[in-house]
Amino acid sequence: MGFKVGLLGLGTVGTGVGQIFQDTLGRHPLLQEVELYRVGVRSLDKARAVTLPAERVTTDLQSIVTDPAVDIVVEVMGGLEPAKSLILEAIAHGKHVVTANKAVISRYGDEIFTAANKAGVYVMIEAAVAGGIPVIQPMKQSLGANRIHSVMGILNGTTNYILTQMQQSGRSFDEILVEAQRLGYAEADPTADVDGLDAGDKIAILASLAFGGRIKLEDVHREGIRNVSASDIAYADKLGFAIKLLAIAKRPEDNKKEIPDRLQVRVHATLVPKSHPLATVNDVYNAILLEGEPLGQVMFFGPGAGSGPTASAVVSDIINVAALLKAGLTANHPDTPSVHPLLSCSHHSYSQVESISELVTRFYVRFLTKDHPGVIGKLGTCFGNHGVSLESLVQTGFQGAFAEIVVVTHAVREGDFHKALDELRSLEAVESIPSLLRVL
Amino acid sequence: MGFKVGLLGLGTVGTGVGQIFQDTLGRHPLLQEVELYRVGVRSLDKARAVTLPAERVTTDLQSIVTDPAVDIVVEVMGGLEPAKSLILEAIAHGKHVVTANKAVISRYGDEIFTAANKAGVYVMIEAAVAGGIPVIQPMKQSLGANRIHSVMGILNGTTNYILTQMQQSGRSFDEILVEAQRLGYAEADPTADVDGLDAGDKIAILASLAFGGRIKLEDVHREGIRNVSASDIAYADKLGFAIKLLAIAKRPEDNKKEIPDRLQVRVHATLVPKSHPLATVNDVYNAILLEGEPLGQVMFFGPGAGSGPTASAVVSDIINVAALLKAGLTANHPDTPSVHPLLSCSHHSYSQVESISELVTRFYVRFLTKDHPGVIGKLGTCFGNHGVSLESLVQTGFQGAFAEIVVVTHAVREGDFHKALDELRSLEAVESIPSLLRVL
Repeated sequence: MGFKVGLLGLGTVGTGVGQIFQDTLGRHPLLQEVELYRVGVRSLDKARAVTLPAERVTTDLQSIVTDPAVDIVVEVMGGLEPAKSLILEAIAHGKHVVTANKAVISRYGDEIFTAANKAGVYVMIEAAVAGGIPVIQPMKQSLGANRIHSVMGILNGTTNYILTQMQQSGRSFDEILVEAQRLGYAEADPTADVDGLDAGDKIAILASLAFGGRIKLEDVHREGIRNVSASDIAYADKLGFAIKLLAIAKRPEDNKKEIPDRLQVRVHATLVPKSHPLATVNDVYNAILLEGEPLGQVMFFGPGAGSGPTASAVVSDIINVAALLKAGLTANHPDTPSVHPLLSCSHHSYSQVESISELVTRFYVRFLTKDHPGVIGKLGTCFGNHGVSLESLVQTGFQGAFAEIVVVTHAVREGDFHKALDELRSLEAVESIPSLLRVL
Repeated sequence: MGFKVGLLGLGTVGTGVGQIFQDTLGRHPLLQEVELYRVGVRSLDKARAVTLPAERVTTDLQSIVTDPAVDIVVEVMGGLEPAKSLILEAIAHGKHVVTANKAVISRYGDEIFTAANKAGVYVMIEAAVAGGIPVIQPMKQSLGANRIHSVMGILNGTTNYILTQMQQSGRSFDEILVEAQRLGYAEADPTADVDGLDAGDKIAILASLAFGGRIKLEDVHREGIRNVSASDIAYADKLGFAIKLLAIAKRPEDNKKEIPDRLQVRVHATLVPKSHPLATVNDVYNAILLEGEPLGQVMFFGPGAGSGPTASAVVSDIINVAALLKAGLTANHPDTPSVHPLLSCSHHSYSQVESISELVTRFYVRFLTKDHPGVIGKLGTCFGNHGVSLESLVQTGFQGAFAEIVVVTHAVREGDFHKALDELRSLEAVESIPSLLRVL
């Protein structure tokens, strides 16, 4: 056996990884030179789908990351701590790291990659974004000729399942959420998914790869899907759109510099034209759409979560590290000058992220108004006063005593649009503005 | 300047490559360490979109592949010769090779990769399949954990454009072909595209990567789209299918071995259910759908041809080689033990490819029959006698004096199905069988 893996965590993903190692025939031959040497778990008593010799399993996770025999530490525990500290300690002990932990990488990537570069080890993160879909590796190795204009995607399977079900059944967010929790597609505490935090972690990681600068997570504008109602989905459908939780990183349209000096990085429910490639990505599937020059658009589509797909990404990363070790390509190998420059992290500065109020976008707004003659005129005049030009304005029906009006605007600066909304809210005729969504 | 590129060919793709090198800011920083050192062209007099110093341009292509200063030879001439000989000579002189030449790689991959392994150089072929879509690199580096079950795709933009236009306009193959030629989407001699040869080259390459054995091109069953009529497209649409030229490599369903001992590798027009991810890939776009265990399905979608997308793949390959050179990871570097095992070709044997008559598939057949009572009964009886079970049988209308009948079968062994067709052809009631297509 050539290379030794220390696996931290034997939950859903860890079990998937263990199953691959127990059944290597027909996979990449290099896998047979890698050994699942030690496995760290929280409890030794739990029944497992993967059977391991008792002497390989321990609850002492620190003993794995410091074990001189271990070459590659694979962290699939999830959560911030102790995952982050164990990763840093593994790096300090000269281990290469493979992790599926988007939360740790998006928050502590700076510290982790700086430590890894210093130690001359690789930190591989294919599984941290979009589960089994190869996207990290292609961004590192297959798109270098391009100036990337945007990377956007459906990066959270839970919310995509909920929105797809809402669209197909006409039922409410709350109803579908309960069903998704029953089916195991949503957590008991669904906050990270439905409030856009998970997708925010992932787009921060993709943005740093696409644009070569680190992203401060607090700069990422994150909204979720709790405010998307069944009637919004129905109206969007009539207008020719599907509603998706999109994670978007792009250079602003007016930024023509070769290296953009600021970026938009944001997560929010979005009306996506039905003809757009992301509009038909349904259920728990993920997809990433990249746009660059001279490439044009490419899309990667597949399973964004689950034991098998995520383990596929983790083990493929392990094979990549094993290949580099086998070829002698590590900085702490005495004969080689350096690490592989496309697989180590080469950027150190932070990208400047534009405030969401600077965003220029189309909007979809749903109003409830008093059923008076002249209300539509008042809305139109107020928008006009703030320079907001309208693409469509439809009185869609009634909600109780109130008239429901749906407006789609032309592109407008978000800050200016909110000034118009503030004035509209103050109108006696406007009861409320239950929905406000951006249009792709 | 660190690394020197010798570019063979300054046509559509070569020009795209040149344009990237003349405008590197905002692309991968490593590109600034690579120099477009010499360029080989057929004629020095031709006007070019890329301006190069006269001393860099030559018609003596051999002087480039033997130039001791050149590190990487980039072959974007196309055609079999002199491309193949120049590639082999470059390898013999210790150059790394980047090529977009699917025809050379699918026919002479054995000779080329054997020579490359012996010389310790890399032969990179991302641009040879699906233009700008990253698929070669992900197959080499991001899917190693999996047992691949199938790789299939829309790999020829010309035929996909023709089929899409036929579907959207209802016009005939011949009409659309002429239009495609006028628009530059089809060659004056369209044989390689419309008869499935180009897609055959590409699926042979993908199959060898997916299943780890070389493919003899003559084993690849190749049919084109000349036999697809406007009425077939209309009937398929009514039945819930789009017609696509699919290139398919898969292990037969009954082959449960971890390493399959035979494969199907084939190109043919196929009825694809509209809900299938490949059904909505339209116009000149390409897409590749991979299925493996434990990953499930992933799809890669994007521009399959054109100057910019293909140049994106070529230059990204150049950056990959430059990264390996920079890290010292080449076998002819004195300090390193070996080439990168995932980027060199590691298989040497040929895969066994099953005869198309062994294929088990559903079929779509269109009959013209005499308008007699009892014809449908005769068809049904004859199919039944040969064990062919029918999913649907519809008399769709009349073509002149003949009744038109469209049949979709359940899965049947192709050899058995042809025996039934032979008997049907001999029936007095059957005038002809103008269309026979497989159903996915």
